Amino acid sequence: MAHFTTNESAQYFACGYSCDHAIFLQLEDRAFFITDSRYTLEARARVQGGVEVVEGSDLWAHMIDLVQKTPPNKLYFDPAQITLQNYQRLEARLGEKLVGELDYHRKQRVVKTPEQIALLKQSQHLNVQALKEFASCVPDLQEPSEAFLQFKVKEFLTHQGVYDLSFEPIVAINANAAKPHALPDSQTHLKKGDLLLMDMGLKYQRYCSDRTRCALFSGELGFDRPQHFGDPELQKIYDIVRQAQESTIEQLRAGMTGQQIDAIARGVIEKSGYGRFFGHGTGHGIGLDIHELPFISPRSQMVIEEGMVFSIEPGIYIPGKYGIRIEDLVVVQDSRAQII
Amino acid sequence: MAHFTTNESAQYFACGYSCDHAIFLQLEDRAFFITDSRYTLEARARVQGGVEVVEGSDLWAHMIDLVQKTPPNKLYFDPAQITLQNYQRLEARLGEKLVGELDYHRKQRVVKTPEQIALLKQSQHLNVQALKEFASCVPDLQEPSEAFLQFKVKEFLTHQGVYDLSFEPIVAINANAAKPHALPDSQTHLKKGDLLLMDMGLKYQRYCSDRTRCALFSGELGFDRPQHFGDPELQKIYDIVRQAQESTIEQLRAGMTGQQIDAIARGVIEKSGYGRFFGHGTGHGIGLDIHELPFISPRSQMVIEEGMVFSIEPGIYIPGKYGIRIEDLVVVQDSRAQII
Repeated sequence: MAHFTTNESAQYFACGYSCDHAIFLQLEDRAFFITDSRYTLEARARVQGGVEVVEGSDLWAHMIDLVQKTPPNKLYFDPAQITLQNYQRLEARLGEKLVGELDYHRKQRVVKTPEQIALLKQSQHLNVQALKEFASCVPDLQEPSEAFLQFKVKEFLTHQGVYDLSFEPIVAINANAAKPHALPDSQTHLKKGDLLLMDMGLKYQRYCSDRTRCALFSGELGFDRPQHFGDPELQKIYDIVRQAQESTIEQLRAGMTGQQIDAIARGVIEKSGYGRFFGHGTGHGIGLDIHELPFISPRSQMVIEEGMVFSIEPGIYIPGKYGIRIEDLVVVQDSRAQII
Repeated sequence: MAHFTTNESAQYFACGYSCDHAIFLQLEDRAFFITDSRYTLEARARVQGGVEVVEGSDLWAHMIDLVQKTPPNKLYFDPAQITLQNYQRLEARLGEKLVGELDYHRKQRVVKTPEQIALLKQSQHLNVQALKEFASCVPDLQEPSEAFLQFKVKEFLTHQGVYDLSFEPIVAINANAAKPHALPDSQTHLKKGDLLLMDMGLKYQRYCSDRTRCALFSGELGFDRPQHFGDPELQKIYDIVRQAQESTIEQLRAGMTGQQIDAIARGVIEKSGYGRFFGHGTGHGIGLDIHELPFISPRSQMVIEEGMVFSIEPGIYIPGKYGIRIEDLVVVQDSRAQII
C-alpha cells in the first residue's frame, strides 16, 4: 500500500535511515527518501531496499510531483504525524487519494521480531550496566547536585559517547521524585538518608531501553529491589509500588487489553489507599520510539499479543515529600511477560 | 488576542514554563496552562503572570471546555504547530472561532529585547569558552573518534551538566564535514593533518547559542579564523567561505530582506565557481529555538529589523573530500550586524 511519513522512527523502520527534514514515500512499486542537500550524502550511503534518494529544498513539492507521475489509488498517512499546514497543501493537490489512518506506521512496529527483541535486550543490558557503574561512583562524589548526577550518569549511559540516550535521564532526590518528569536542578544535593530516583535509557542500534529504580543513599548506593528506608511511610509506599509492579508482571497474559493490565497495578495501589497518588498509565510500548504502542493505561483497548514489548512502571507520588516508581521492560512470550 | 499553542518555546515565552505535554491557552482575560499530573507540581511552581494550571489527562477536552465557558471572538493558532488529528477534533467543537496564522507565536519573538539579547550573548560566550577548553584537551587524546570527540565536547558545552545543549554538536572530520548535518561515527579517528569541523551550542536560561568553526589538527588545535591547511584546494575553499561570511556580516543592513542578505554570501561563493556546493540557506534566527525567524535564505522575504538575532553561516561541501562552514551569530544594532 502506498503511504508517506515524516516521522523519523517510521522512516528508519521503512528504509534504515532517517533525518529531521525528510519524507519517506512508498508508491506501488517504488519508494523515495526525499530530503535536502544537508542530508543527501548520508542518505544515499545508508538507505536500504532500493529506496531512491531525491534531493530538494521544497520536500512537499517533490512528493506531490512523484505522486502525480505514478498515482496510487490510496495514499495512507497518520493524521497525528502531519501538521495542518502540510496537510492543507497536499489536500489541494492530491485531495481524494489521501487516507488518514491513526497510528498507520506505529501499528507496523507493535509486534517485534526476534531480531528486534534481541536489540531491545542488548539496549536494556547496557542500560542496567550503566546504572550499576554509576551507583558505584556516587559515594566518591561530594554532595553532588541532581544536575551533576545527571551529567555523570550520561557518561555511563552513552558509554562515553558511543550510544545515544533514549531520553534525558531523570535524576530526582526526595520531594523532586514526586514530580514524575522532574527536571534535575543544581540546588538539590544528594545527602546521606536521601531517596534517589533514576529513570533512564539509551539507544542500541536505534532501539530504546528504559528502566526506573529508587534507592536509599546511605553513603553507599545500590539499586537492588529490596530497599530499606528509614522513613516508615516511604518504606510502605515503596513496598506497595513494588508489589503492584511484580503482581502485574506475574499476572499479565497475552489476550488481555492494555486496560486490563493497567487495572492489575492500579488495583493494588487503590486497595492500599494511594490510588489518587498514581496519576499516569502503568506502561508504554517501546522500540524505535521511547513511547510507542501498546499503551498500558486505563484507556487502552489494544489487545496484547506475543512479541509485544512494553514497560510496567506503576508509581506513587506524594507532593512535597517523595515519589516512588519502579519500571522494567517486558516482552510477551509463551503468553506471559518476561523481563528483558 | 486569544490564542493557544502546544509548542514548548511558545509556552515558555508566554508563561515562563513549558513541558512536552501541555497546551498554553490565552483567553480574553485569563490564561491557562493545561497539562497532566506528571507536570503539574513543576508547572504550579514555575508559571508566571497569573496563569492558572489545569490538570487533566485529555488536554484537548479541557481546552474545549475552557473556551466554551468564556468564548473569544477569534482563537488564533499556528497551523504548522498543530497536527491534523488535533485540529480536526477542535474544529468539530470550536469551528468558526479558529483562525490559523502561520508563525503566529514565532512572530512575537522575532525582535529581541535587550534582556533577551543579553541572554543570547551569555549563551554564546559560554559556547565560545567551551570550544576553547575542548581544543586545548584534544592534543592529549589518542586518535579519538568523532563519537568520542562529541562526547568530550558535550562535557565542556554543558559545563559538566549545568547547561543543556541547544542541539547535538556536530563533530566532523575531513569527508564527513562535507555532510552539513553529519552524525559522528566511531570509525573515523582524528589524525594529524585532518580537517575538523565543530558546530555547536548550548542553552543559557533557555536561550540558544550556535557557532561553527573549522580547523586543521596539526597535533595542536586552535579554532582561530586564519587557518593554514596543507591542501591548496581546501585552503582556497576555506578562504572563500571566510570571505563570504565576513562580507555578509559587513554589508548587511537593517531594511534588507533575508533573501538580499543571503544573496551577498551566495554571490561570493558563486563568483568563485563553487555555487553548486552551497546547498543550504545562509542563516537562521535564534532565540528560544535553535532555528526561528528570520530566515536568511533565497526564499525569505522577511525584512530585517533592529534587534533581530540570526546566524550567518555559508559553507562549501565537496562530496567525498571535505566541507567548510563558518558560523557566527549577529544582532542588528544601529542598522548593522554586530557579532555576539
